[in-house]
Amino acid sequence: MNPTAMFDGLTTPRLLLDADRLDRNAARMRARCDALGVALRPHLKTAKSVDVARVAADGAQGPITVSTLAEAEYFAAAGWRDILYSTAISPAKLARAHRIQREHGARLLLVIDECDAAAAIGKEAASLGARFGVLIEIDCGEHRSGVEPASAELVAIADTIDACSPQLELMGVMAHAGHSYAFDDPTSITALAEVERLAAVSSAELLRTHGHRSPIVSVGSTPTALFAEHLSGVTEVRAGIYLFCDLSQLSRGVCAEDDLAISVLATVIGHQRRGPSLILDAGALALSKDIGANRFMPDAGYGLVCDAVTLEPLGSLAVTTVHQEHGNVPVPDESWFARLPIGSLVRILPNHACLTCAAYSCYDVLRAGTLAGQWPRVGGW
Amino acid sequence: MNPTAMFDGLTTPRLLLDADRLDRNAARMRARCDALGVALRPHLKTAKSVDVARVAADGAQGPITVSTLAEAEYFAAAGWRDILYSTAISPAKLARAHRIQREHGARLLLVIDECDAAAAIGKEAASLGARFGVLIEIDCGEHRSGVEPASAELVAIADTIDACSPQLELMGVMAHAGHSYAFDDPTSITALAEVERLAAVSSAELLRTHGHRSPIVSVGSTPTALFAEHLSGVTEVRAGIYLFCDLSQLSRGVCAEDDLAISVLATVIGHQRRGPSLILDAGALALSKDIGANRFMPDAGYGLVCDAVTLEPLGSLAVTTVHQEHGNVPVPDESWFARLPIGSLVRILPNHACLTCAAYSCYDVLRAGTLAGQWPRVGGW
Repeated sequence: MNPTAMFDGLTTPRLLLDADRLDRNAARMRARCDALGVALRPHLKTAKSVDVARVAADGAQGPITVSTLAEAEYFAAAGWRDILYSTAISPAKLARAHRIQREHGARLLLVIDECDAAAAIGKEAASLGARFGVLIEIDCGEHRSGVEPASAELVAIADTIDACSPQLELMGVMAHAGHSYAFDDPTSITALAEVERLAAVSSAELLRTHGHRSPIVSVGSTPTALFAEHLSGVTEVRAGIYLFCDLSQLSRGVCAEDDLAISVLATVIGHQRRGPSLILDAGALALSKDIGANRFMPDAGYGLVCDAVTLEPLGSLAVTTVHQEHGNVPVPDESWFARLPIGSLVRILPNHACLTCAAYSCYDVLRAGTLAGQWPRVGGW
Repeated sequence: MNPTAMFDGLTTPRLLLDADRLDRNAARMRARCDALGVALRPHLKTAKSVDVARVAADGAQGPITVSTLAEAEYFAAAGWRDILYSTAISPAKLARAHRIQREHGARLLLVIDECDAAAAIGKEAASLGARFGVLIEIDCGEHRSGVEPASAELVAIADTIDACSPQLELMGVMAHAGHSYAFDDPTSITALAEVERLAAVSSAELLRTHGHRSPIVSVGSTPTALFAEHLSGVTEVRAGIYLFCDLSQLSRGVCAEDDLAISVLATVIGHQRRGPSLILDAGALALSKDIGANRFMPDAGYGLVCDAVTLEPLGSLAVTTVHQEHGNVPVPDESWFARLPIGSLVRILPNHACLTCAAYSCYDVLRAGTLAGQWPRVGGW
């Protein structure tokens, strides 16, 4: 039998998820958090799937993190009850957040990082008759969002939140070391994990000395979660990409190649003699234009090209140019044209799974190397 | 009344389409093609919308171009009959193409650019009992796909297609000067338009001297369509982005700023004092990671930030960093925080509309500056 026959009938490009690798990745992070003595609140902005969320929590519907209200709505409707919406909320979105809580009996944790926002959100919550738990976001060095750790402004935000009681209830602090992606050596990532931990823990302590509660001390990114020496004072870890891994993680030494659970099934649709190169039907929409892995893996291009069945890399072939629906793969010589004739299937290990997956409405799930069904994803906002 | 009140109830980020600008852009290209004496076969890979397709053809259901079979299926189901599927097809996709023709009475034009592919597709068509019109793709210099213009290989492909008659019927040639995006001066683009024209016309002529028909001689990209001096020998133009325009087109001098019909409505969700910068709820998923405009507009970032109502640029503010759901907009000083408090709406002119639109399932349509309904889009493959 043709070894790719199991893919017959699948229109390419197509998003494949290796559920065995997913299982292993999920178990590894659970064991890691157990060893660190912290809860795991997986970030589902990558997976956007109830099936993946169940694997992450070994079948349970535990605490989760999401990045959009569309995700919050989707998981709440499916029975999840403890949902951290980790993007700072604007007052106009509060009505929908309130509806998600009311209709599904879920509890949303919102994130705030400035006094004006706290006041505006408290006021809007009062007008809705809504109540929300709130975390204050701490900027642990990435300078994307968040307030200075253990700062006077932090206390002022906490005071403002308290003044909005009972609409807003301060539940603690969160920090995210997104700048851990600037490093590919364990020593630097370990150091950054400590910076992230200290930012969160010192902020929680300052709040407590000012009479505020901080039952939740939340940190996380996949690299810092895996390389932290300890997480003393932290109560929970948020991480997401560990479930799938990708070339960005691999390039930073955060995972091994056989941890990569996501790949894009593509078809060879052309041979370009100039180059020479293969043309795939997976381009900018199927792979995304993210090239974050190239910082530490300069030949990653938009993704590495692998055997469709074994997922073994085909030499060092990579998608180096993308158009909307075309991916261009330079090959050393034209012998590759006979090896991969028109219609051949390949699989591409994506650069950044969060962005690649976003183009698809479902996963085709592989178990023990065989297609075992489809898992839907939620998209949009 | 708050001038942004019309946006109340819209969850941001959100894709807005200015239908007045769209009307104007569509009329301009129709007039241009009339003046050039060629048919217009709009490329709908950008818009992916029947409503936009109707505007493009001034209400008619004329010939169209698509880049995926999902688009072909969508337009065929909605009544379009003459559909060029402009991405080279693989044999495994033929059954679906056949079904689209049979179920909807549409006629698909397929694209082939090598002998082996022609033979494989002819064989598969025979086994399906299917018939397709075929164009041979000519490489006019971009070297993405296509055969050398007026080459022996071109004739060999035509011979192979003829040998697959009646399953495959050769209908002509197509060329696409995608490398027109490498230039921002009219002289170079005009020169490239002539290269594109000559590649297609000389190829059609060679086919005719070898006894083949070439009723269709198809060229196009928005820049070459707008800057060609003449299109003698060409029968039709394919172009798509002219309908929406974007910063990539603007940066190349192909359109004016008030032609840009697509924008992303976003909310200010944070103020970062370090920088200082605004944080928007439009990041890598809402805008895409395409930065193609920056080649000729180095300050375009991931998009220019504009007033939510007037679409006037706010100073030279641009989204310079994106995370999955966060966009970072550096501001000259903190006075911008009072000018754009938390919850403020802005609109972002995207870098590359094809990729930005792909993240959304519909357009919120503006007419005369007022929301006038939603138009759905088709996605996926």
